[in-house]
Amino acid sequence: MNQHALLHIPDSRYCFATGEKELVIRLRTAREDQNIKVFLVYGPKYQFQLEQKEMRMQVCYEDRLYQYYEKKLRLEDVRLAYIFRIEEDGESFYYSEDGLTKSYSFPEAFYNFFQMPYMNRNDRLEIVDWMRGAVFYQIFVDRFYQGNHEKDTSYIDMEWGDIPTPKSFAGGDLQGIIQKVDYLKELGVSAIYLTPVFASISNHKYDIRDYKKIDPQFGTPEDMISLVQRAHAMGIRVVMDAVFNHCSMELSEFQDVLENGRKSPYYDWFLIDGEYPEPEKMNYECFAACNYMPKLNTANEGVQEFLMDIALYWIREADIDGWRLDVSDEVSHEFWRRFRREVKKLKKDCVIIGENWHDAYPYLMGDQYDSIMNYAFTKACLDYFAKGSFDARAMAEKLNGNLMRNTEPVNYMMLNLLDSHDTHRFFTEIGRNKKRLLAGIALTVVFPGALCMYYGTEICMEGGYDPDSRRCFDWDSSHWDKAVLEKVRELLALKAHPVLKYGSVRIYEQQEMLKIERQWKDGKILLEINLTGARKRSAGYPASLSAASPGEYLDTDEYRITEYRVE
Amino acid sequence: MNQHALLHIPDSRYCFATGEKELVIRLRTAREDQNIKVFLVYGPKYQFQLEQKEMRMQVCYEDRLYQYYEKKLRLEDVRLAYIFRIEEDGESFYYSEDGLTKSYSFPEAFYNFFQMPYMNRNDRLEIVDWMRGAVFYQIFVDRFYQGNHEKDTSYIDMEWGDIPTPKSFAGGDLQGIIQKVDYLKELGVSAIYLTPVFASISNHKYDIRDYKKIDPQFGTPEDMISLVQRAHAMGIRVVMDAVFNHCSMELSEFQDVLENGRKSPYYDWFLIDGEYPEPEKMNYECFAACNYMPKLNTANEGVQEFLMDIALYWIREADIDGWRLDVSDEVSHEFWRRFRREVKKLKKDCVIIGENWHDAYPYLMGDQYDSIMNYAFTKACLDYFAKGSFDARAMAEKLNGNLMRNTEPVNYMMLNLLDSHDTHRFFTEIGRNKKRLLAGIALTVVFPGALCMYYGTEICMEGGYDPDSRRCFDWDSSHWDKAVLEKVRELLALKAHPVLKYGSVRIYEQQEMLKIERQWKDGKILLEINLTGARKRSAGYPASLSAASPGEYLDTDEYRITEYRVE
Repeated sequence: MNQHALLHIPDSRYCFATGEKELVIRLRTAREDQNIKVFLVYGPKYQFQLEQKEMRMQVCYEDRLYQYYEKKLRLEDVRLAYIFRIEEDGESFYYSEDGLTKSYSFPEAFYNFFQMPYMNRNDRLEIVDWMRGAVFYQIFVDRFYQGNHEKDTSYIDMEWGDIPTPKSFAGGDLQGIIQKVDYLKELGVSAIYLTPVFASISNHKYDIRDYKKIDPQFGTPEDMISLVQRAHAMGIRVVMDAVFNHCSMELSEFQDVLENGRKSPYYDWFLIDGEYPEPEKMNYECFAACNYMPKLNTANEGVQEFLMDIALYWIREADIDGWRLDVSDEVSHEFWRRFRREVKKLKKDCVIIGENWHDAYPYLMGDQYDSIMNYAFTKACLDYFAKGSFDARAMAEKLNGNLMRNTEPVNYMMLNLLDSHDTHRFFTEIGRNKKRLLAGIALTVVFPGALCMYYGTEICMEGGYDPDSRRCFDWDSSHWDKAVLEKVRELLALKAHPVLKYGSVRIYEQQEMLKIERQWKDGKILLEINLTGARKRSAGYPASLSAASPGEYLDTDEYRITEYRVE
Repeated sequence: MNQHALLHIPDSRYCFATGEKELVIRLRTAREDQNIKVFLVYGPKYQFQLEQKEMRMQVCYEDRLYQYYEKKLRLEDVRLAYIFRIEEDGESFYYSEDGLTKSYSFPEAFYNFFQMPYMNRNDRLEIVDWMRGAVFYQIFVDRFYQGNHEKDTSYIDMEWGDIPTPKSFAGGDLQGIIQKVDYLKELGVSAIYLTPVFASISNHKYDIRDYKKIDPQFGTPEDMISLVQRAHAMGIRVVMDAVFNHCSMELSEFQDVLENGRKSPYYDWFLIDGEYPEPEKMNYECFAACNYMPKLNTANEGVQEFLMDIALYWIREADIDGWRLDVSDEVSHEFWRRFRREVKKLKKDCVIIGENWHDAYPYLMGDQYDSIMNYAFTKACLDYFAKGSFDARAMAEKLNGNLMRNTEPVNYMMLNLLDSHDTHRFFTEIGRNKKRLLAGIALTVVFPGALCMYYGTEICMEGGYDPDSRRCFDWDSSHWDKAVLEKVRELLALKAHPVLKYGSVRIYEQQEMLKIERQWKDGKILLEINLTGARKRSAGYPASLSAASPGEYLDTDEYRITEYRVE
């Protein structure tokens, strides 16, 4: 047995509550140790030295190096003491806080058992229920649709449909989105994620000068309220973009500091090295190296009040359903904790989605966000569908590893995406292969969590890196591939299936195909994807929802979704 | 190379800030992989694809299975991107968020580098400076010294010095401690930790019925204030015991619920399954299985207010310097976060010490406690000094592993103890071997962190498990071993040495001796402990502070502390 591979961390992604008296326990072992048997030895915390139960654990996930045993337990108590017993070649070993040992002293167990000390309800990450199976549609507002032609349009400096430059304005607005809510509903969207809409001089509006004002290019507060009302009436949620890491140089508080330096009451709102911020010297903290986006100091109480006021204002004012947090990994944990406390107090099912490109577990322990934009999933999809650097097995391993980064409640709320305004368009990356586009969407549908589709994916929009990924939506439906659009609709409609909302997941490679199985109660959904050059015999089942032609074979780049009942 | 052993987790005990622009990075590898070279490849987060620096890392800690490479970096920026390069047999491998790979694509690094996204000052755990090198003295109040003979003494039901029963009262009080502050000062104590002193019917007072009242057996609020004043005047801090997990059945709020059931405004303060709490049925949550200690529901806002009021009250009222948190692992993280925010706001250097017997990392990330009672250290000392189940090498491995559980700031504040009111007395466990007692204290002195000595250890007090570990202090100095007492004083005096307060640490076995080296600037202190039957030649140095007879040899059970300068 490879002892070095063993990993269990209590009160973490390896042991977490999923209900009042329900918890999940995971143990990591080396993948090559296929011949071991793993047992959970558990009992009441204060009686563990005297009474233990034992239960066999099964491998549920497998990545390149490791196997992950998992067990969901329903307890009578809210405390649990446990260790693992591992059998190898008829010999028993014990794995506790002291590592792997040949024997274990139960009378002294209180020194080194693992434990769930107490499942306090206020520490449990509760799932925002509407996030299960949610279909998000991300809209870069300037490029989606112009609905208001009465507004001052003098800022518009490109023709709708021209290739955008970093600074061009196309005219899209909130009225435009309101007018397209029906379109989104028909597509199968259940939530809209809007890039920023507050007062800002840029087209992307990630440099905000007034967080309480809707930028006049996009509309008015009334438009924002109407959009949410219209969306809610159609059963669609709306999530806004919280750019709280930094602001625009034009924010009045920063202007005050520019003028008054250390004497300004807002001096400590920013992180300045000197008497005055000097943009040309960059003597203050910024987003990246952009002197026009000074970083806000969230260690400052005034900044915290300022930002919380904004966060709560738009929930109260427009009844929005969530905040996506821009550059959230650079903002202090302390601030996000306060953000969560106050946001959840005001609206419990308001979702909090971080923009963390990396393993975000320190933010996803229950005290900060609910979810992140799952860019690790994006990267895996690029490696598999676009670059061919992953075969089906490598992809299965990567996806399993991705799931093992977080607890189950987080995985059910994860925002899985193929692309966004910050990446190349997926369709372009895969060489405009429509079969692969559909297979990619199918994967995102069947993978646990919510799905986020970048506007225009359904009509095969193309684009390289920013600004090219932010082209104008082509509303001339004669340009659309209706067959693809229809398949996208079919796939998105499936996302709300109870098996996909609540089901467990197994991901593996079989016959060089990627297979994802979901199961809930007696229902099962199987996704198969074949990216090899060869035709594959699928292990399909009667009630097929397959995109492949009916039959038992999957051609290259095809996928197949099969729904069936288990005994 | 054993890939499975590799471990690095950003924003964790493997990468943490230790100053405004200073951070520590650790990488874990397999102990058997002694022939690899590890390099940190790092650069500014937003430029990492273009520019990287490289720096060799060294092994700083070694436990049974793993080596831990560590590097402290001083940055120009507050963000860092990094990966590791590992050389083996002339070949290079890269270790990133995607695991070990033969090549690494820097242009795509933003997807899978490790990072310190931003060192926000409000997320950094700041060291409570007086905890470095602090010498705590834990007092079980009823058994230390009776100073007040005017009080109603009718509750006292044992002769001072008799063997205590679970329920006996000996008469110790706050006046007694006040009268012995000089004694403690002379012993070298810099902080007193008092077991609970609030109104309670028991001798231990862990079942509290009024948290604002000092139990009349122990004294008055004025006595508590005087004790702190007297201690402060002598440069001694005072830490009280916060029993916030549970209370006494006699707490008026619980009494109200007993009477009024669900109609009581305090019903939700407890966790009751039914209309009324029924002690004989135990239909409510308690500490362990003690129906007379109902658990407080810290998810309830009223309970949070109630407990915070107590926590802040005693800081304001008596100017105490810290809280030790009873059964703290069963209380919600959410409550401890609030506790920290409010306590630190009122008194920044008020220390927060949890009672967690296990790896407490989830509580020690900077948002909850500063420190814990290090019972894992206690257990290691028992295995090494008492049971002989650890030789010097196993002990070195265990102590290194203990340090790797936490960040450096936490290690500098850790409360290391040989025993407490909740264990057998160490002196009894080691078969009353005075040499080993001194060697154990020497280890606790040289090990990073604060030391906590249980009252009477200095006079070789004996005792088995509770209640026997809570005997009366024997103030008849003719019974004391003066030579031992003098050695204890010498050792405790050393704890404030700058090398021990600020120094790095290396722990290893050499010549079957346990060796702990601390280094700070050009100063070095070496502790050697020989528990084998054989006389050992020590690698001592001229300016010895050794407890062993001067010379180059250490006899069995002897220790030697050597201080020297490095070039």
